[in-house]
Amino acid sequence: MNSNLNFIKEVLPFWNALDANQKRFLLDKLTERCFIGGQSIHDGEECTGLILVKSGQLRSFILSESGKEITLFQLFEGDVCILSSSCIMRNITFDIQVEAEKNSEILIMPASVFKRLSDENPAVKGFQAEITAARLSDVMWVVEQVVFMSMDKRLANFLLEQASVEGVDELSITHDVIARHMGTAREVISRMLKYFENEGLVILSRGKVTIVDRKGLMGISKTD
Amino acid sequence: MNSNLNFIKEVLPFWNALDANQKRFLLDKLTERCFIGGQSIHDGEECTGLILVKSGQLRSFILSESGKEITLFQLFEGDVCILSSSCIMRNITFDIQVEAEKNSEILIMPASVFKRLSDENPAVKGFQAEITAARLSDVMWVVEQVVFMSMDKRLANFLLEQASVEGVDELSITHDVIARHMGTAREVISRMLKYFENEGLVILSRGKVTIVDRKGLMGISKTD
Repeated sequence: MNSNLNFIKEVLPFWNALDANQKRFLLDKLTERCFIGGQSIHDGEECTGLILVKSGQLRSFILSESGKEITLFQLFEGDVCILSSSCIMRNITFDIQVEAEKNSEILIMPASVFKRLSDENPAVKGFQAEITAARLSDVMWVVEQVVFMSMDKRLANFLLEQASVEGVDELSITHDVIARHMGTAREVISRMLKYFENEGLVILSRGKVTIVDRKGLMGISKTD
Repeated sequence: MNSNLNFIKEVLPFWNALDANQKRFLLDKLTERCFIGGQSIHDGEECTGLILVKSGQLRSFILSESGKEITLFQLFEGDVCILSSSCIMRNITFDIQVEAEKNSEILIMPASVFKRLSDENPAVKGFQAEITAARLSDVMWVVEQVVFMSMDKRLANFLLEQASVEGVDELSITHDVIARHMGTAREVISRMLKYFENEGLVILSRGKVTIVDRKGLMGISKTD
């Protein structure tokens, strides 16, 4: 597990505040796991623990009883997800799902381990408050998007953001996957993408959306 | 300020973990204020501090650039709002508004005072993590409502909840106020209320919505 030491020091800002016993305890209890793109990591029923992303890309989302989804936030290398250990957080009354969007390597710190460290060490408790606040900001962003923005703006934003994450303008993504990210129906996305294509902003092909007029999309994403 | 001591002990679970100096410091720095219904308490620009509700009813909401609103949560006697001191919370990247819905008495703990106590005392830091998590749950509830529920369900839920809060079936509330709670346009609410009236669920009159078929509304609030 020592091969992960540098990574852990980087992503857990409380590392230096731990005493030798706490450091050993933490390292002993971490497990390393791999997931392939599309695989579920946390389904909201179990208390997985803290997720530390070593490589890859994860997505956190909520699921309605009728199977509708919306993405809350994405996780990249160096990100930490605390909501997958909600069982140790009083006042968390919802369940999230986490899945790998790409092949990913993660470290899992069991919820009970994090709880013990957080109870023992104020620096860990402070980290808990901070990443909870960060996730609250993520979810507030979702509220602002959904409540205040029209679907064309949201879709333009989404495409530009994914292109920026991927570093390419040709996105390998289906209309269904976009709909599940954005919490809407596939038909709504297909109709809007067709409109974007007619306006010369994107080109659609099987399983792909290619941005051809980035400036035009940015214009849409900013209109009020 | 000693007249508030019992109230403070009740709403701040970390009180007993403070030492004598910290207790005196906290009591010295609290200020008591009154607001009349409709008055703004926190407009998101200043860092008001922690709000402790002694009596009355407050509403926290976000406001879009174009003036649209949606309620995030309501605050009642004994509730504490931390988001009005977001300036001391790293990772909080949004601004909320807080207004009095009814005449309210509140205590304000300046953000700097809370920060000092939270830095000094792990119990205060733990409280910070807990109420941040509670607000995250509130906001997640808003996401679930907005993304997964149709407007008729949401409106039925809203009317039933307000009736339960007020303890009466005759709600003194305008269509505009309902729309601002729910993050939609007044026209949408008026149309839906008219439909509810035609179905014999409510009676509408100037500035009032009266629930006449509670069971029928509950039926709507639960349909999928």
